[in-house]
Order: sequence, then C-alpha cells, then structure tokens
Amino acid sequence: MAGPGPVLAAAAGLWARGAAAAEVAAARPGALEEEIVSEKAAEESHRQDSANLLVFILLLTLTILTIWLFKHRRARFLHETGLAMIYGVLVGVVLRYGIHVPSDVNNVTLSCQVQTSPATLLVNVSGKFYEYTLKGEISAQELNNVQDNEMLRKVTFDPEVFFNILLPPIIFYAGYSLKRRHFFRNLGSILAYAFLGTAISCLVIGSVVYGCVALMKVTGQLGGDFYFTDCLLFGAIVSATDPVTVLAIFHELQVDVELYALLFGESVLNDAVAIVLSSSIVAYQPAGDNSHTFDVTAMFKSIGIFLGIFSGSFAMGAATGVCLSNLSLTIGNVTKFTKLREFPLLETGLFFLMSWSTFLLAEACGFTGVVAVLFCGITQAHYTYNNLSTESQHRTKQLFELLNFLAENFIFSYMGLALFTFQNHVFNPTFVVGAFLAIFLGRAANIYPLSFLLNLGRRNKIGTNLQHMMMFAGLRGAMAFALAIRDTATYARQMMFSTTLLIVFFTVWVFGGGTTAMLSCLNIRVGVDADQENVGVPESERRSTKAESAWLFRMWYNFDHNYLKPLLTHSGPPLTTTLPGCCGPVARCLTSPQAYENQEQLKDDDSDLILNDGDISLTYGDSTVNTDSVASSGASRRFVGNSSEDALDRELAFGDHELVIRGTRLVLPMDDSEPPSNVLDSARHGPA
Amino acid sequence: MAGPGPVLAAAAGLWARGAAAAEVAAARPGALEEEIVSEKAAEESHRQDSANLLVFILLLTLTILTIWLFKHRRARFLHETGLAMIYGVLVGVVLRYGIHVPSDVNNVTLSCQVQTSPATLLVNVSGKFYEYTLKGEISAQELNNVQDNEMLRKVTFDPEVFFNILLPPIIFYAGYSLKRRHFFRNLGSILAYAFLGTAISCLVIGSVVYGCVALMKVTGQLGGDFYFTDCLLFGAIVSATDPVTVLAIFHELQVDVELYALLFGESVLNDAVAIVLSSSIVAYQPAGDNSHTFDVTAMFKSIGIFLGIFSGSFAMGAATGVCLSNLSLTIGNVTKFTKLREFPLLETGLFFLMSWSTFLLAEACGFTGVVAVLFCGITQAHYTYNNLSTESQHRTKQLFELLNFLAENFIFSYMGLALFTFQNHVFNPTFVVGAFLAIFLGRAANIYPLSFLLNLGRRNKIGTNLQHMMMFAGLRGAMAFALAIRDTATYARQMMFSTTLLIVFFTVWVFGGGTTAMLSCLNIRVGVDADQENVGVPESERRSTKAESAWLFRMWYNFDHNYLKPLLTHSGPPLTTTLPGCCGPVARCLTSPQAYENQEQLKDDDSDLILNDGDISLTYGDSTVNTDSVASSGASRRFVGNSSEDALDRELAFGDHELVIRGTRLVLPMDDSEPPSNVLDSARHGPA
Repeated sequence: MAGPGPVLAAAAGLWARGAAAAEVAAARPGALEEEIVSEKAAEESHRQDSANLLVFILLLTLTILTIWLFKHRRARFLHETGLAMIYGVLVGVVLRYGIHVPSDVNNVTLSCQVQTSPATLLVNVSGKFYEYTLKGEISAQELNNVQDNEMLRKVTFDPEVFFNILLPPIIFYAGYSLKRRHFFRNLGSILAYAFLGTAISCLVIGSVVYGCVALMKVTGQLGGDFYFTDCLLFGAIVSATDPVTVLAIFHELQVDVELYALLFGESVLNDAVAIVLSSSIVAYQPAGDNSHTFDVTAMFKSIGIFLGIFSGSFAMGAATGVCLSNLSLTIGNVTKFTKLREFPLLETGLFFLMSWSTFLLAEACGFTGVVAVLFCGITQAHYTYNNLSTESQHRTKQLFELLNFLAENFIFSYMGLALFTFQNHVFNPTFVVGAFLAIFLGRAANIYPLSFLLNLGRRNKIGTNLQHMMMFAGLRGAMAFALAIRDTATYARQMMFSTTLLIVFFTVWVFGGGTTAMLSCLNIRVGVDADQENVGVPESERRSTKAESAWLFRMWYNFDHNYLKPLLTHSGPPLTTTLPGCCGPVARCLTSPQAYENQEQLKDDDSDLILNDGDISLTYGDSTVNTDSVASSGASRRFVGNSSEDALDRELAFGDHELVIRGTRLVLPMDDSEPPSNVLDSARHGPA
Repeated sequence: MAGPGPVLAAAAGLWARGAAAAEVAAARPGALEEEIVSEKAAEESHRQDSANLLVFILLLTLTILTIWLFKHRRARFLHETGLAMIYGVLVGVVLRYGIHVPSDVNNVTLSCQVQTSPATLLVNVSGKFYEYTLKGEISAQELNNVQDNEMLRKVTFDPEVFFNILLPPIIFYAGYSLKRRHFFRNLGSILAYAFLGTAISCLVIGSVVYGCVALMKVTGQLGGDFYFTDCLLFGAIVSATDPVTVLAIFHELQVDVELYALLFGESVLNDAVAIVLSSSIVAYQPAGDNSHTFDVTAMFKSIGIFLGIFSGSFAMGAATGVCLSNLSLTIGNVTKFTKLREFPLLETGLFFLMSWSTFLLAEACGFTGVVAVLFCGITQAHYTYNNLSTESQHRTKQLFELLNFLAENFIFSYMGLALFTFQNHVFNPTFVVGAFLAIFLGRAANIYPLSFLLNLGRRNKIGTNLQHMMMFAGLRGAMAFALAIRDTATYARQMMFSTTLLIVFFTVWVFGGGTTAMLSCLNIRVGVDADQENVGVPESERRSTKAESAWLFRMWYNFDHNYLKPLLTHSGPPLTTTLPGCCGPVARCLTSPQAYENQEQLKDDDSDLILNDGDISLTYGDSTVNTDSVASSGASRRFVGNSSEDALDRELAFGDHELVIRGTRLVLPMDDSEPPSNVLDSARHGPA
C-alpha cells in the first residue's frame, strides 16, 4: 500500500471496488479483457453512485414521513431542517462505524515527470488512450484516509454541487417569495443590516477569532498556519444567517410582520453578501511571496472585486427578470384571445428555463450565479408574476416550492452526514469556544449599533425586544455550510469547517427550538394580521409611517410605478400619461390597452390571487376577500390623500398575499380552529 | 502537437483554454503558482461548462417561443420535436463552421507504464497529489479531432446523461399518463407488438442490414469490421419507436382511440424492450477468442440476461409503486381529518422521491432503471394516484409533465446538434439506403403478420387501414438515438449512429409532417369522443367487445379488483367480502372504512376529477360532468350486466379522463369553437 512520500513507485494493480477486484486480478493484459475490465469498472462505479444517491433519497423520504408523524404531536421544538440533520447524523454514524468497505486493492499512482497538473490527461496504455479529468488535489492525509473506508469517500459530494445545483433553487425561491410590502417598507434597514452589518460582523468575528488563534499559538495548540485572512474568511462564512426555522415559527404564530420582514430580508441579502465577500477575501493576493501580509493594493483590489461581482450579478439577475417580464407581457398580449391548452406548460417551462439561464449566464461571465438568481427571483416576483396566467402563477410557485423544499432538506441531511463522513475534521475546544464567543459578539455588534443608528431615522422604531429577537435569531444554515465546505485543503480551513458545522448544529437545534419560548419571554406580539395592523393605527401616524419609507425608496417607487410597471406589466398608469410629451408616439406604442382600464384603480393584477390555507380563492377586479377587505376599504377612504405614498401602500398591500412565504412548510401545522394566541399562552404557561 | 502513435513523449505544456494559457506558460513551477493555475483551470472549465449548458437552455427557449408563434398559423406539419431538431441543426452548423476555438496549447500525454486503465488515477506532481477520474477511452481519430475544435467537444455530453437524467422523466411520464381503459382492453395486442413485434423487427432489420453490409464488403466500401451481432444491435436500436408527433396529432384530432391506444402502448413498451434487448446483445460474449462467432451457450445466456433484467426491472418498478401506494394510503387515512397546509407539498415531494428511488434502486442492483420507472409509473397511475389529495394529483402530474416536456425537447435539440458536433460520423449511402429498406421491411414484418394473428382472436378487429397507419407511424426518436449514441467506439457503431440519426430526422420530419394527410388518405375516422363510442355500439356487441379482453386480462382484472385495489386504495369491494373466511380478521384490519361506503358504486376515486380544457372541474361522488355523463348513465343502465366486465369498463372509463395524455402538448392547438372534422375536411380538400 502506498504511503505518502515524494516519489512513489507505480503500482500495477487497480483501484477498483467490490466484485470486479477478483476478476481484475486474474485478467490477462490482453486487449479484450482490458476493455471488459474498464467497462466493468465504469459499471461498478455507476452502481456505486446510484447506491450513494439512494442513501440521500431515503434520508429525505424519512424526513418527510417524520414530518407527517410530528404533526400529531405538534412538536414546535424541532423544525424539519433540524430533523433532517438528526437523520443525517444517524446515517453518518452507521456509515462510519457500522459499515466498513475495505479497499482490498492498491491505488495506482504514477510518478510521471509532469511539472503541472493539467485539467485533462491522456494516458497511453499499450496503445489505447484514456482520458482522465482532474478531480482535485488530494492531501497526504486524504491518501491514507482513502484506503481506510471507501464508503465514506463515496458519499462525499464535490462542494461545487452545492453552488451549482442545490443553492440556486433555495435562493431563487427566497427571492421569488419575498413579502414585498414589508420588505420595501424596511428596505433601508434591511440593506443596512445586510451590507454594513455583515461587514461589521465579518470584521468583529475575524478579530475575535484571530485573538483566539493567537492564544492557541502561544499555548501550542495550533497544528498549522492560521492567518488573519483565514480569520476574516471565517468571519464572512459564519456571517451568513439562515433563520429558516425561526421564520417558520414566526409565520405560524403570525408574529410581528415588521420583525419578520427585517429578519427575512436581512438573511436573504446577507447570504448574497457573504458569498461575494468570501470570494473577495479568497481573491486577496498581495504581491510578493508571502501571501498573508497586509497589502493595501491587494485589499482595494479585493474590495473592487466585491463591488464588481456583486453589482454585475445584481445587474444580470435584474436584467433577465426584466427581459422575461417583457417577453411574458408580449406573449400574454398575443395569446390573450386564444385558448391555448398548453399555455401554462409553455409559460412554466419558459419561466424555469430563463431563471436557470440567469444562473448559467452569470457563472459563464465569471459572476456569482447564486446572487444573480436572487435578484432574478425578486424581479420576477415584482414584474413577471403579474404577466403570467393564473395557472402558471400556481405552477411556477409550486415548482420552486418543491425544489426549495427538497434542496434545503438535502443540504441539512448532508450536514448531519458530514459530521461523520468528513475525514479531516479538526475539533479544537479552544477554537470552538472562541468561535461561539465571536459569533455572539459579531451578531451583537451587527444588530445593536445599527438598530440604534437606524432608529434615529425611523419613525416606526425597532424596539429593544425586536432587537433581542433578531440577536437570538441569528441561526446559521445552508449557506454557511456550503461556503465552509467549499475549500478544506488546509489545516485552517478544516478547522473552520468543523467549527462551522458545530455552530450550525447548535444554533438550529438550540436556538431554533427555543424560539417559541424566547418569543413569549420577550413579549413579542403574535397573532398579528398583516393588514389589520393598519386599522388600529391612527391615520396621521400611518401617513408618517409611510413617510419613513426613505427618500431612496420613494424615488425608486416613483420610477417603478410610473415607468417600469407600465412598461413591463399590465398595471400602473399608462405610459402616455407618465412619459413626457415628446415621447408620445413611443408611449402609445408601449402602453398596454389594459393599462387604460386600470388607470382608475391603480391596482396590481396580482391582487387577483389570494391564497388562503391551501385553498385557491380567486378574485378578480374589484371583488376582494378576507384580509384584503379592510385594506381595500381603507384604501378607498384614503384615495384622496397623497397619491404616491397611498398608492404605494395600496399596491404593496395587494401584492403581498399571493406569494407563499419562505419558511411556510412546517413541522408545526396548526389546526385552523385554534387561534394562535391561545397556543402561545399555553406555551408560556407550559404544555397543557 | 502530438499525433497518434504507440508511444508519445510527455509534453510539458498544459491542455488549458483561453486566457489561462498565457499565464500558464509564464508560471514558474512553484507551489503557489501551481495552485493558482490549477484553480484557474478548474474555474475556466466551470465557466465553459456553464456556457455550454446555456447554449442548450437557449435552444429550448427558442423552441418554446416558436411554438407560441406557430399557434397562429396552425402549422400542423411541424411538431415541437421536429422544431427542436431544426434549431439543433442550425446551432450545430454555427458551432461547427461559424465558431472556431483553436486549442493553442499542447496536450499532456503521459507515456507511463501502466497495464490497465484504472478508474481513478493519482498523479504525483512534485510532491502534490492530484486525483484524476477516468472519463473514457479516446480513439486515435478523436485525438486529432480534439485539437481541431474544442468547442464541439465541449457541447458533447456523456451518453449516460441520457439514460440517467433525460430518459427517466420521459418514460415515467409515459407510464403515468397511460390511457388505461384502452391500454388494458388491448393489452394482449400491445404485448404482442411490443415483445414479439420488436423481436421480429430486430431480426428482420438485422438480416437485411447484414445483407447490405455483405454487399458493401464485396464492393469494398466497408472501412472496418461489421459483424452480425452489430447488425442485430442495430436492429434492436431502431426498433424502438417513438411516435410522439403522430400521437399528438391523433389526440388533437381525436382519432380512433383504439388506434391511439395500440400505437401508444406499443411505443411505450417497445422502448423498454429495446433497451434490454440491446443490453443483452451487447452482453453476448461467446467463449474463445473470436467474439463474433455463433455460440449457442452465449446466445441462451443473452436471452437469459434479457429475461432476467426485464423481469427484475419490472418487479422493482411495480414493487415500489405498490409500496408507495400503501404508504400514501396509510398517510391519507392518518391525515384525513387534519387540514395540513403543507400536505400537497409533502405528498408531491414523497411521490417524486420514491419514483426517483425506483430508478436508483434498479440501477444499483444492476437492472435497467428506465424500465423500472416505466412500470413504476404505470403502477402509480393505477394505485397511488387515487390515494393522493386532489391538489397533489395536479401537482405530480404537472411536475412530470414539465420534466417530460423539457427533457424531450432537450434530446431532440441535441439530436439536431449532434449531426454537426459529432466528429466521427460515417455516412455510407449504401448502408443508409439499406437501413431505410430494412426498417420498412422490419416494420411491415412486425405489423402485418401480427395483426393477422391477433385478428384471429379479436372481435374488434384491427382494420387494414389501421394497420397501414401503424406502419406509417413507426417514427424513431429519443430512445433510438440514446441507444445508438451510447457506444460509438468502433467503426460499425459509428456508422450505425450516423444512420440512426438520419432515420430519426427523416421519420420525424417527413412521416410526422405527413400524418394528417395520411389520416385522410386512409379514411381513419376522427373527432371520436372516447366515451361516446360506446353509445352508438349495440349492447350485444359491446358485451362481446369486452369479452375479447382476453382471459389473461380477465384473470388479472379480477385479482386486481378484488384484492389489490382494496388493499392499496380506497376503492373496490372491501377485503372482508373478497377474501376467504379464514382471513377474516386480517381482512377487517386492512379494509379501509371508505371501501364499505364505496361498495355500492364500485367506482374509482379518480372519477372525482375530470380535466376539461385546462379548467379544473371537480366532481365528487355521483355528480358528473360533460363527457362522463353519457358513460355514467350508460353505466347505470348496464349495472345489472355481467359484473366483472361491466365493472371493468366502468372503472376504466371513469379512470381515464383525468390523466393527461402524453403527446398533448402541441404545436397545433385548436380553437375549441372549430369542430375537428371540418379541419380534416379542409386538410383533405387542401388548404382553404
């Protein structure tokens, strides 16, 4: 068996698996046998891959079945992501200690005189050429590990699978299901938390961890290099929050919508920021041999990379969204009077393909696909959704809801599995404690100072209890895990990964489970009807509440309402009224006939569809249902008021209900007969 | 640049692409630079992969948009699959002749002394170890080609992608959307065509082609070996029919349902037969050195492999379907009284995962996943579908409809592309002509003799015009292409692939386009309402029509109706009545309470849902709609008749309407105001 060393003699065996091994050993090196053997090896490899994927499918199936079971016990302490992690851990234990598939053949190692590792390799075997593709670098440790347990290696995915296959649907769905009214109302705060807050968090965490690492170096616990850039990278990685558990509970109990919006918006955007930030930090390459000294040029270059990639991805995502909305508008107009049986299928297919193409285009251009699909999702929700037929609105939403559900639970299962299947864990108690302290301080440094500053400008201030809840709800999840596992080549990165895993486990299980208790502890109001909250508030305050939607947003809103919406959807005032006179002919061209009809109502088409408890209630035109009735009557009362802000509020209010809120799929279904506030009371007073 | 030769000197360059090349040339072999370089190479490779996938996504998008455009012109000559192929061809031309990405660096070829090609390779580069995975064998030709045009290589997929990713959704959806009443009524005929017919077709085609090849050898046109086993393999490959175009037109014009069922059922099953048959032929390994002599043992072994794999895959697919139906039944009972908001999501997720797991399980056990998912789909449609909630029925159907749509158009686009991107075409006019002759004769030998024999036993005979139509409708498509492209290593296989491609093009464009004309030419009735056909037929004939559903089917039906249905769904007579007395306690256990309610009606739950023109019309219990009303009133009239056959007919009649028929998504939408017969008349008399 080959051990690590500078030069290894070429072994003449085969690195095969299972039954093929015996055959291989007996095979004579003739042409036919070789062909059969390599076919068998490929086939065996394929069967193994199928078996591995099957393990994950069964994990997911188990998770779904348990969710069903849990509904009886109304277990509010365990969300499905936490459940998926538990199952992953269990299976990981089984794979690690229960099953042992020894590799009973040797590796083949070539000691060829190549100076660089090419992407593709041609190997000449007795006149036949075989093509090999570079999978990656293997550290000396892994070499040894490989021979220990084949099984573990096979259930390990290439980290890029997360960024190319699993995260895009999750992030897209997050953007597509944004609760727009409250998101845009709190846009300034959300942007502050997402950008400034993440940067602050990254720096604070990096510094605290650096101190911890310095301590470890002094006490001799450090087994390898751990630079400040690594600490900063760790800071960026664990700054990506994923409060999916908390949000699910919030939605279930109908917690304060302001809090929900802040938390959700922040988490969605700081995922995007964290990815690009970590890429920028990794791209930090100072001149000279030592790659970890401080170099101002390199730092500014990294910052430039951050800005460039982020804005590029943003632009790409938004552009595709706008493009698709234009397309769907045109097609909708063209096909409006033909009853095309396959219309929803084609619409859904087109929607899916163009969203996917956003991702690919961004990746092909060197930007970040995940960030692009986020903004694509937001844009689609704002424009394209209105242009789709009702059936297609359902279908697209359901499709991405399913993809999001499967991908998210897959990642969380994998997380649990990785605790045991990852073979290069570096668990250092000092570092772990330091990391937990760091994220606590980082979150605090993020939330409290920023909230204070924001409250100076906000009318509807973020109360201290809300701040405490935001502090508490800083769970880590899929994004942090994916970023951490992306590169585990060095000692530092391995330690970071192991610690991130522990952080995710702890926050999801402990903080996620304690959310309900914390809610009552902090006296945060529940059972809040999203629209009724307008009723109790006096009109003057409501007017000023809207005024707090900063000038930035008002600017954007006017632009959007007067130009973009008419251009891209059927709603909003006709372009002929909003564009200056010189553009008259163009405006007439571009104005949808429906816009003239809608002018009186100034209402989005997406008020047509309101989902209630899984039933599809269709309303069209002026007729409204349930929660909307208050707002709409309120709207007509205020019609004479300041048009832009009232229109804003009306528009966003109508536009919100149909979108499924991310985090809705719960372990914690509630019987509709039971009012939420009672549940919380019983939680406060202990189980009944 | 390296040319083909037995031993190649190791080149010190890099096989990289684009901008990385210059950097690489200048890189000093230091550790850091190597790391950057290999990271850059991997990144460049990833960007290239994204760009390639983007090409296909844009192809699909174009296809969808053109379908929309076509609806205006009601072009009935071009189905979307033919359209996708055209676009593929156009893009292929552009890629081949328009874009030239020269590879301006050398390959790296290692002349290492290895005796076999391992599945994984470790390369030692100055102390660092890199892992390479075996991609495949490259022939000497390809080596040269590779250096010509990188672009073409990159848009070429590993053929296993078709069998692992693209074909499963297509085949599953075919099984899931089977028109059950007519399928089971004609089960005997369909099985005959699918099994016997495919075998006959394979032998006839193989023989004719062998004759052609012998001729070519005599005239010196043959450039390589072409054995009889290759001819047989070609026969198996092109026996897989895929009349999706024709079926779409049939559905559109509401052609004779008997014909539709025969054609659809045959195509679905003969795909399965063709896959396993081709695997068996490939597995033909006679003893001794010459692998192409006739060896009875080897032949029987191949036959054994065929039977083993087919029945194993069938069993696996059916078992998983039954398993899932059991599961969904249990869950349905448990959750019946809780209004679970996420119920449809969980149900759909579970359905999707278990269908996928069927595929993986079959593949992991060495069976054929595609065949397993076919039978899984059929089983799901028969049992599990009834147990799902209404919302889930929609969702699962829509989900797989979308997957089927995307996958099918992807394959057809790829076919068009492959005409120009495949670099080892072998077009031989003699062989092509011989192949066309062969498939004509093969189809004739399949249809006519079997129809004659079947008509001896059938009451409702298959008329000669129907036989001619079946002869005409032998289009080839996705399955034939995938089987042909699976292995193109040898000269014979390359010639077979090129010819198969031409066959697919010709049959889809020419025969698909000429379907409408052929329908009127053969005087096949159109505008047939699936249920009304029972009304006009006298009762005595109807009774005997049912009797023709052979004893085989009657046996299966009784078993299914009395035991399986009650066990796996809510419908059918309660087990307590059908099981013998001794099993009383068990039967009481397993009988769903709902079964007692249903006993009077003997009706499937799936009569609850009938889709009309994209609108969702819900009926429950006795109330019916539109097309069903005739049948149900007819049903109550015949209630006193022979219970098993009438019940059969009733049950299947009710069960059919909700399933979307494969091939429905059309280029050819019809305005509902226009009756189909008029359209056909106008087709007959030429365009208006």
